[in-house]
Amino acid sequence: VKIVLTGAAGFVGSHLAQALLATGEHQVVLIDQHFTAEQRQAFGGAKCLAGSFADADILADGVDALMHLAAVPGGAAEANPQLSKQVNLGATLALFETAAAAATKLRVIYASTVAVLGEDLPPTVKDSMANAPGMTYGTHKAMIELALADMHRRGVIEAFSLRLPGILPRPFAPSGLKSAFLSDVFHVLAAGKEFVMPMSAQATSWLMSVHQCVANFMLALTADSSLMPKSRAVTLPALRCTMGDLIEQICAQTEQPTTAVSYELDALLEQQFGALPKLAATAAEAVGFSHDGDLATLVSRGLQLTERSAV
Amino acid sequence: VKIVLTGAAGFVGSHLAQALLATGEHQVVLIDQHFTAEQRQAFGGAKCLAGSFADADILADGVDALMHLAAVPGGAAEANPQLSKQVNLGATLALFETAAAAATKLRVIYASTVAVLGEDLPPTVKDSMANAPGMTYGTHKAMIELALADMHRRGVIEAFSLRLPGILPRPFAPSGLKSAFLSDVFHVLAAGKEFVMPMSAQATSWLMSVHQCVANFMLALTADSSLMPKSRAVTLPALRCTMGDLIEQICAQTEQPTTAVSYELDALLEQQFGALPKLAATAAEAVGFSHDGDLATLVSRGLQLTERSAV
Repeated sequence: VKIVLTGAAGFVGSHLAQALLATGEHQVVLIDQHFTAEQRQAFGGAKCLAGSFADADILADGVDALMHLAAVPGGAAEANPQLSKQVNLGATLALFETAAAAATKLRVIYASTVAVLGEDLPPTVKDSMANAPGMTYGTHKAMIELALADMHRRGVIEAFSLRLPGILPRPFAPSGLKSAFLSDVFHVLAAGKEFVMPMSAQATSWLMSVHQCVANFMLALTADSSLMPKSRAVTLPALRCTMGDLIEQICAQTEQPTTAVSYELDALLEQQFGALPKLAATAAEAVGFSHDGDLATLVSRGLQLTERSAV
Repeated sequence: VKIVLTGAAGFVGSHLAQALLATGEHQVVLIDQHFTAEQRQAFGGAKCLAGSFADADILADGVDALMHLAAVPGGAAEANPQLSKQVNLGATLALFETAAAAATKLRVIYASTVAVLGEDLPPTVKDSMANAPGMTYGTHKAMIELALADMHRRGVIEAFSLRLPGILPRPFAPSGLKSAFLSDVFHVLAAGKEFVMPMSAQATSWLMSVHQCVANFMLALTADSSLMPKSRAVTLPALRCTMGDLIEQICAQTEQPTTAVSYELDALLEQQFGALPKLAATAAEAVGFSHDGDLATLVSRGLQLTERSAV
């Protein structure tokens, strides 16, 4: 299977690229604006194209699947809606239209986001709820979901939009992401240092390890298309946990006392990332997508990726 | 108030243009690809710009409100998704961004459609239901609704998306619209001729007179913006009636026997236009939007616009 992956140098993208190459079954083309020398080496079996996914004719010859992860992230999109419109809406639509015009019917796997759901969530988020994105990033992702569903209906592509929750743990480096603390807590506690959690112990988040996220993308490559809902978009079944439970589990596995963590509540962060209700991801589960299973597994997977020396 | 109206030569647009001019309170700029000599005369008090709404700098000086009705209609959009993407999505977004860049905050009133809701409707359509457009036209309208909600949230425009049901009666002329029979029944019975209804007597549709539709657009000009939902989109409160009741009422008011109508069911039309469930248009009603009140009023308003000689 010939697969084109955009955003391949990013956090999820680079893990996904390595998983695709590890199967030894795929011909993989990786796109991102820039690859480090380490990445080019790690991606040895793949063709790495450095540049915009909008520039090159990246779907030129006989591609079977397009995995589109490249995007202007949430904070940057909010700061620059025009840039988000250009990349997350315009260039993304153009890419999918190129895919639709291909001689063979492409499977298009699109990294959407739970941000399409918005902030005023009901006690249980169900597949039937209306999207009400509260930021420009989620708005453009929701618009693309609609366009993909229509292209799928017209039979020109096979569309899978996967709405990602917070994926863990990102590398310990300034990312500009407001949710970075949800990854940092892994790195800092693994390094045996003290951590200040900016949400309350009762705050509830939706989490998924990058390991599980990659497994879900891999599943989308071969999943039975007829099991997807008409909207062609599913909210992935994230694990919902409180910050207290998360910290207790990380401390247990890193043999730290829970007193290594103090809580200094940031009301805005708590509102944005700490008030996630129950999630009934029925449609996604019907296709075969899953969360990490339990918190111990999520934490164990997360800790495998911590960089103790970086802290 | 200075108002720019696109699609002003169209069915709803031309009625709305005349209503705006009749108030004597507004400075009105009308845009459409072509105006007939009769229209230019009827719109005597307005500036008529013939051309694409995408071409001219139609929001140049000090516009207060933009009423955007111009669109590639449903059937044409379905036949040519690229054209719909260009006009109903791309040019429409560009127009709204020009509005957003204006020195004063514009009120943008957008003609959306119940087609955003899709075809698999629940027993009662409520404001909380998720959009699931089943055609390209509704898809692009739903995408624009999302973009408008985001622009409103960012404070750069004041957005009102009004989802229109079937509007009656269109002129008795080949329109290419599959729903034309819902208008033709008025013209044909008013002319004392026999009519073949392509849906069953039990079929249920959502209807609104063009008189009522214009009243709702006029209301949007002055409505309290804070009463609109966060989505900035409302499904207008259409009158729901069976074809049997509609025909009985038209026959009563035109003094025709109901035997003037025979039923020849077209299963596809029945599915598309004759299976509309109950509609709870609570959000729209909270702002002040309304339907025709009762079927007798809707029919009476419709018959005022029939062209007996044209049949």
